[in-house]
Amino acid sequence: MMQDTEPLDDEARAEREVAEAARTKPWQPYLDAALGFRNHWYPAFFSHELAEGGVRAERLLGEPLFFKRVGGQVYAVEDRCLHRGAPFSARPECYSPNTVTCWYHGFTYDVRDGRLAAIVTDPDSALIGKVGLQRYPVQEAQGLVFVFVGDLDPPPPLALDVQPGFLDADLAVYPRGERAPVASNWRLAAENGFDASHIYIHRNSPLIVGQRRPLPLATLLCSREGMVVAADGAPKGVVKGSGKRVPVWETEIEGIKVRSRFLPGEDGGPGRTSPDTSMWLPCGLKVDPFPTVGMIQFEWYVPIDERSHMYTVTWGQYVQSPDRAARFHADVDAYWKDLVTRQFNHDDVLAREQIERFYAEEGGWHRERLYRPDLIITEWRKLASAHNRGIQRRRAGRTPGARP
Amino acid sequence: MMQDTEPLDDEARAEREVAEAARTKPWQPYLDAALGFRNHWYPAFFSHELAEGGVRAERLLGEPLFFKRVGGQVYAVEDRCLHRGAPFSARPECYSPNTVTCWYHGFTYDVRDGRLAAIVTDPDSALIGKVGLQRYPVQEAQGLVFVFVGDLDPPPPLALDVQPGFLDADLAVYPRGERAPVASNWRLAAENGFDASHIYIHRNSPLIVGQRRPLPLATLLCSREGMVVAADGAPKGVVKGSGKRVPVWETEIEGIKVRSRFLPGEDGGPGRTSPDTSMWLPCGLKVDPFPTVGMIQFEWYVPIDERSHMYTVTWGQYVQSPDRAARFHADVDAYWKDLVTRQFNHDDVLAREQIERFYAEEGGWHRERLYRPDLIITEWRKLASAHNRGIQRRRAGRTPGARP
Amino acid sequence: MMQDTEPLDDEARAEREVAEAARTKPWQPYLDAALGFRNHWYPAFFSHELAEGGVRAERLLGEPLFFKRVGGQVYAVEDRCLHRGAPFSARPECYSPNTVTCWYHGFTYDVRDGRLAAIVTDPDSALIGKVGLQRYPVQEAQGLVFVFVGDLDPPPPLALDVQPGFLDADLAVYPRGERAPVASNWRLAAENGFDASHIYIHRNSPLIVGQRRPLPLATLLCSREGMVVAADGAPKGVVKGSGKRVPVWETEIEGIKVRSRFLPGEDGGPGRTSPDTSMWLPCGLKVDPFPTVGMIQFEWYVPIDERSHMYTVTWGQYVQSPDRAARFHADVDAYWKDLVTRQFNHDDVLAREQIERFYAEEGGWHRERLYRPDLIITEWRKLASAHNRGIQRRRAGRTPGARP
Repeated sequence: MMQDTEPLDDEARAEREVAEAARTKPWQPYLDAALGFRNHWYPAFFSHELAEGGVRAERLLGEPLFFKRVGGQVYAVEDRCLHRGAPFSARPECYSPNTVTCWYHGFTYDVRDGRLAAIVTDPDSALIGKVGLQRYPVQEAQGLVFVFVGDLDPPPPLALDVQPGFLDADLAVYPRGERAPVASNWRLAAENGFDASHIYIHRNSPLIVGQRRPLPLATLLCSREGMVVAADGAPKGVVKGSGKRVPVWETEIEGIKVRSRFLPGEDGGPGRTSPDTSMWLPCGLKVDPFPTVGMIQFEWYVPIDERSHMYTVTWGQYVQSPDRAARFHADVDAYWKDLVTRQFNHDDVLAREQIERFYAEEGGWHRERLYRPDLIITEWRKLASAHNRGIQRRRAGRTPGARP
Repeated sequence: MMQDTEPLDDEARAEREVAEAARTKPWQPYLDAALGFRNHWYPAFFSHELAEGGVRAERLLGEPLFFKRVGGQVYAVEDRCLHRGAPFSARPECYSPNTVTCWYHGFTYDVRDGRLAAIVTDPDSALIGKVGLQRYPVQEAQGLVFVFVGDLDPPPPLALDVQPGFLDADLAVYPRGERAPVASNWRLAAENGFDASHIYIHRNSPLIVGQRRPLPLATLLCSREGMVVAADGAPKGVVKGSGKRVPVWETEIEGIKVRSRFLPGEDGGPGRTSPDTSMWLPCGLKVDPFPTVGMIQFEWYVPIDERSHMYTVTWGQYVQSPDRAARFHADVDAYWKDLVTRQFNHDDVLAREQIERFYAEEGGWHRERLYRPDLIITEWRKLASAHNRGIQRRRAGRTPGARP
Repeated sequence: MMQDTEPLDDEARAEREVAEAARTKPWQPYLDAALGFRNHWYPAFFSHELAEGGVRAERLLGEPLFFKRVGGQVYAVEDRCLHRGAPFSARPECYSPNTVTCWYHGFTYDVRDGRLAAIVTDPDSALIGKVGLQRYPVQEAQGLVFVFVGDLDPPPPLALDVQPGFLDADLAVYPRGERAPVASNWRLAAENGFDASHIYIHRNSPLIVGQRRPLPLATLLCSREGMVVAADGAPKGVVKGSGKRVPVWETEIEGIKVRSRFLPGEDGGPGRTSPDTSMWLPCGLKVDPFPTVGMIQFEWYVPIDERSHMYTVTWGQYVQSPDRAARFHADVDAYWKDLVTRQFNHDDVLAREQIERFYAEEGGWHRERLYRPDLIITEWRKLASAHNRGIQRRRAGRTPGARP
């Protein structure tokens, strides 16, 4: 095999570290987090998807949420009437700006705080003002509606739960990103997006082939140096770090040479083909630059339930003026959005869905055989286990006498 | 808010009673009855749906039943051969009037008593005459085929298990009512049909809007006076009773007036818009008058399994002659049947289906927050718990070695 | 009833034996074998379905298998990468003749022994050569690819796990038989194919009616004489044996005569209408002759999972020359294949699927009521319990934290 350097000591050390971690699995909280981590901010949808006075429903971390925008501000409450569990979203009714009324018996809640404000069918009920829906703090930023799924009051700052730089004032974020449900647990998505060697699945992606872009078969990354980022008062994540990266352009199988489709020419090279990739609590990815120089791709894998997540993607660019921001948005509309989502990310979706069965039904979390490049994944699992703010659990609740 | 009277003492008392009942839940048998109550009569289908010599299959309370009409009489046995469990209905075979033969190995049963009468493939078998299918007593009345799902022999009189008046000789019952499976537990249907305040879901029903019918937002009914009907030797049920009813025509939310769409004029009024509604064991509703003066609506919510029920609806009218009965049937055919089922009851179906998840999967029976108008529901749960003749249970039976 | 002979002592004895066996159920291993028997050879597909260099995936006994043909030889390995459980078959990649590469991270296995031969994304990984996939021995015979699902090394001879005669050099086997998944447990299929009295389901099969073939309502077979075949070093099975067979051509139900549609004429008779049927471990049936004199029908019911099996059917004929074999194949193509599978076996498929619910969900294995002709089935269950080489079990593996 052709390789740029001799094997590093780092590599041998990485091999031992991954093997040891795979054996001891020091990430039990992560294994328990099939529904995600509680007490974090999650992107629920794009701001443009909810107009003034409008409502919408989304399921996050197994919980049904009902959103309403009033006076510009988005509010979120449980999408389930306290009385008999009817979802407001089945027939949304709003008699007044700040309320939602359950279509079944007229229980009316103030969406700003969840409080039961009136009952159409029993205006003098003693319950009024005394009970309320779970409310979810909401904050909009960069064209996304973030919601806090948890119990901390006040919630921690949003800035702790987004990818570094995402809130920068001079970062223009494309406001009409993609959202699509994917049939896999959110952790498989996080690990794939971030996986040091999954680049291999993209060698036939139309984006790569169409642009004749030099892409190594893999880029070995084995050093933990600079990998874990967990300073107080800042987002917690794992980045590819400052360890040496070794691209693999060619290998050999049964004496047959296997080469990357396009080898680097004068102007190609590792810098161009190996962006900085990093994964942040609770479930956000940053790839910089991607898909081209000057652009940053942001992804989120928001748990819907144990077997599916909402895949949210958008892009950012640092700009000096609103004019440049507008040009950037137009470029994404015209070219990048479709290219990335339909000609590149679909391969990632396939990967997540194809391994779901192994992890959900066949004991994959205990049978998997991690290897050296998975060092970055083992570090992520450890970081997520150490720095999450809680494990999301299903509320009990099979009906007595009901059949599974 | 505008209301006809000052709050009643009754109302305060109802508030306390519902709160107390919701806390102590004195209705465990009802909670256990996901499959319905055993040892009761249930309507299986309309008489016209089974012609002489014909057969049909229905599932009731989780049990598969096979019906055959012979010499005018309908018989019912288990739709499952004793030998290897094949359902007769998969390929019904009848060599003789009183028998059904299993298409698989020719086990032949007398439908009148369930007895194994012959085996085509082993005419001398020692089993013949010694074993038999579970049989189900059947009785036809008012154009419906009722079947007794239980073990009492003889069964109690049908008259104890139908809505009062249903068997009256001068009540003409429409013979071609509606039957449709609905995806919710039967108890959610019973409670909806009977719910003192669910009228709210009908304010936009086409039947109401199209007729410009004055319909209050709700009719408060808070007194237990006359509510429970449980005399010996008569049907057991809960009726709206003789307590004062307070219609709510208008309320206010965030300072915004919410009014009924059509207010009562000279000839409108509570009597017209608030029929007597009552719910009877095992699962029958009576609404009198409805949909118009002189008509009575009858409904049944027969458990199919834990997550679905058969919704059966028909109408009755007291008449003096066969001629008037025929005119009544023609009126239902031409006008009322479609109007009620497609333009009114579909709202009830939505309600039942929308709360099914909460009750079946999310612990709704223990999380619900009942309020004052639910007094009639708590009374129903207590009555049903006290007067049912048994809880229907699933027969055990996962295959050894089978995977769930 | 009309019968050729007086009841036999054998019949009374059979009656007692079946009743006793049904009571004591001396076949616990069989009850445990919802997924089939481990350590046996199973037909996976027909040879023509896998061309040189080609690959295909099949699920057998709950396990995912990946097949590849190299240099004429078929190899099989687990269809699930060791690393993260991705199925190779989702995107098959083969860089070299003897390998398959996982499309996700480039783990490359030698299909001949399952060994991890290379990793495209980490060419120097210490894992290479040290770990491997489960491999499955494969042997082709008579146009079928057989695979050994088990752990014995070396596996026992294929000849022990096929129907007697199937490997005979002068038996021409039709190479393009039928394969179709059926929604029932494999044991219900085995017992149906072999069932002494299930002939009853075929009396209206188009093959029988179209040929005006005399077919008795049943053929009683009650003697164990010669039934169990379990010599050392030979296939283990149960055959109809040498006991006297009593055809039932007519019976009576409620005084009504029930006759076979076509009674035997001069040239008809038991020999023609009652072929030798036998069932062999692990799951193979032989019917000789069928569908006509000189042809033998072979069937297999290979477990896919607990609720489905792959139904594989083909035919054989003893021939003296390749020329005669070619004519036989052409006859099957032109006539027999469609006739048997579409106009006869579909009745068997119905039977298996219709009793699946009873056995899988309603405790059928403990509620069934076997009768005298089921002697052959009780003998099969005992033989299978005594002579299988292991019970196939699901590998544990619900994800911690995952919801069922």
